[in-house]
Amino acid sequence: MTSAPAEEGGGALRTVHVAGAGLIGASVGLALRRAGVTVTLSDADPEVARRAEELGAGKAALPEEPVDVLVAAAPPAAVAGVLLEAVAAGRARTYTDVAGVKEGPLRAVADAHPGLASLVGGHPMAGRERSGPGAARTDLFEGRPWIVTPLPGSGAEHVERVEALALACGAVPVRMEPAEHDRAVALVSHAPHVVAALVAGRLAAAPERAVGVAGTGVRDITRVAESDPAPWLSLLTANAAPVAEVLRALRADLDRALDALDALAAGGATTDDVEALLRAGNAGRQRLPGRHGGPVEHLATVPVVVPDRPGELARLLVAVEEAGVNVEDLEIEHSLGQPAGLAEVLVRPGEADRLAAALTAAGWSVHR
Amino acid sequence: MTSAPAEEGGGALRTVHVAGAGLIGASVGLALRRAGVTVTLSDADPEVARRAEELGAGKAALPEEPVDVLVAAAPPAAVAGVLLEAVAAGRARTYTDVAGVKEGPLRAVADAHPGLASLVGGHPMAGRERSGPGAARTDLFEGRPWIVTPLPGSGAEHVERVEALALACGAVPVRMEPAEHDRAVALVSHAPHVVAALVAGRLAAAPERAVGVAGTGVRDITRVAESDPAPWLSLLTANAAPVAEVLRALRADLDRALDALDALAAGGATTDDVEALLRAGNAGRQRLPGRHGGPVEHLATVPVVVPDRPGELARLLVAVEEAGVNVEDLEIEHSLGQPAGLAEVLVRPGEADRLAAALTAAGWSVHR
Repeated sequence: MTSAPAEEGGGALRTVHVAGAGLIGASVGLALRRAGVTVTLSDADPEVARRAEELGAGKAALPEEPVDVLVAAAPPAAVAGVLLEAVAAGRARTYTDVAGVKEGPLRAVADAHPGLASLVGGHPMAGRERSGPGAARTDLFEGRPWIVTPLPGSGAEHVERVEALALACGAVPVRMEPAEHDRAVALVSHAPHVVAALVAGRLAAAPERAVGVAGTGVRDITRVAESDPAPWLSLLTANAAPVAEVLRALRADLDRALDALDALAAGGATTDDVEALLRAGNAGRQRLPGRHGGPVEHLATVPVVVPDRPGELARLLVAVEEAGVNVEDLEIEHSLGQPAGLAEVLVRPGEADRLAAALTAAGWSVHR
Repeated sequence: MTSAPAEEGGGALRTVHVAGAGLIGASVGLALRRAGVTVTLSDADPEVARRAEELGAGKAALPEEPVDVLVAAAPPAAVAGVLLEAVAAGRARTYTDVAGVKEGPLRAVADAHPGLASLVGGHPMAGRERSGPGAARTDLFEGRPWIVTPLPGSGAEHVERVEALALACGAVPVRMEPAEHDRAVALVSHAPHVVAALVAGRLAAAPERAVGVAGTGVRDITRVAESDPAPWLSLLTANAAPVAEVLRALRADLDRALDALDALAAGGATTDDVEALLRAGNAGRQRLPGRHGGPVEHLATVPVVVPDRPGELARLLVAVEEAGVNVEDLEIEHSLGQPAGLAEVLVRPGEADRLAAALTAAGWSVHR
């Protein structure tokens, strides 16, 4: 017997309320609406909900009737409170969240409602340095893992419905126990974030001349250190023990690296230990999934020389419009004071040749 | 009195020999030829020199007469040998190198030739994950710092000639003492590289399911860990003491982080120490120069809602132009199929308020 269509089974997903309209909540709203789901939104700050609505993430209102799924899109320290309020108000058939730590917050809700079958944790592995609804993207979850963490009391139909929600957002559901989730994110996200902050912190008091010659390597290593501290503080506080365990193992590795470097500085002959740590780095790096974790938007780039004068970029985009091509993204490769820069116009691959020809005919210098 | 033109002064640069035709050597050749310099090339592997010649980096031959500058483009462990051979053969008026560690290799040459005025160290802060002449780029050094490290005995005209070489390659010469250089690169490059390798190494033995949910953060942090170990082993061996010094300070920071996390895991009430480390990370990150190698461009952002329809972006930029404001950069926050997105118009800070008001008056929704 084949399984029933999603619309008729436990995974039915017609209405969703997203409680919390920041980056993740608004992106969930955008993705679900694209999938045809009716979405309502709320936020502790009504202006945030209004902005998310304006960007198309759903209607800024509480649902009038219980929805299929309520998504609590709040940080770890707040998410239990959001879920408890929603459960008490009976807002949904199934409750889930998107917080980055699962064990503690979910236990707090389950402890208050023993045997609550309708609660299933969730955590989409996607984010950005920027926050707020203005940074939301329909494709934020595209191809990304969405960890689904059932509790011992979670009903099978509720787990299915949360997995259907992840799929509707374009993500790939991965089932884990809450504690396994917390150890995994400590290893691949929270502990590396702390290390990036420590490496960046070393630069805070460094001589200006040293910092001034930094290249792309340290920029990549410290990129996440430019994130807003608030959400990370919430994650690290809620997941302190698993993060400390990873960092303690890393400190042991660092001690071995220091011993090896000290021996080299003292004139030691063997470079074996340093070579071994570099090779272990190669091996670990090799295991990481692809950059986008799944299908990528393959866009074609048409690089065009743009003089650094007011109006030139507008003139270019008018020319693109006249060619009948939609701009999917745009990157400007120039710096202040440079006489001309490259504008990289990203378009659907089938349109790149036509755009390049049209722009060349219109007198633009296309670098392909 | 104004200084003489470069062609007639100590900086004269008509002929250069590049000894070592890998990524850096071949890129130096390409950049100098673009600047009109006559370039000859050699390499321990004649096939490598031949390939560099084929790509236009210079003629694969030893110079028939002494050249203006000989550039030893070899790794730290080999560069002293290359320079000693060239000095013994009298191949140039001025000798320099591009190795990533300066103190040890330069001292080895200076010790063998006390009072050698024609030797000036150099290190362009540019590279790629890929190596060999096939990865060479004419613009590899464009806008990048090129550290020039005179020795106590270096003659002023030789320092000028090496700076002229850096400028001819499109780089920005920065003068440092060799030991200052080695401490700076330990801080902004070598020690961060070791840390990235250690973080990646932690993933080597991790559960498959944990590694499988890794996101972009840890990918950025560990990107340099996919580099070929050989050149890094050479750099770390030659610069072991300064690298160990940076890593020892980092270990002390890590110990404080562990104490703070352990206290939180034990139910401690204060998150101050963890917040402080995240803020120090923000502060350090802030100090890194911009993507293009210059001082960070401080621009103001005006986020505007743009419907995802052909022509809307052009219409917005025409409105910006009509407001008399120059667009310094533009970022588009939307993805394929999203009904509306934010266009972030980056402008000089003094113009942001005026632009926001003008766009609002023209009917655009500005999110500030």
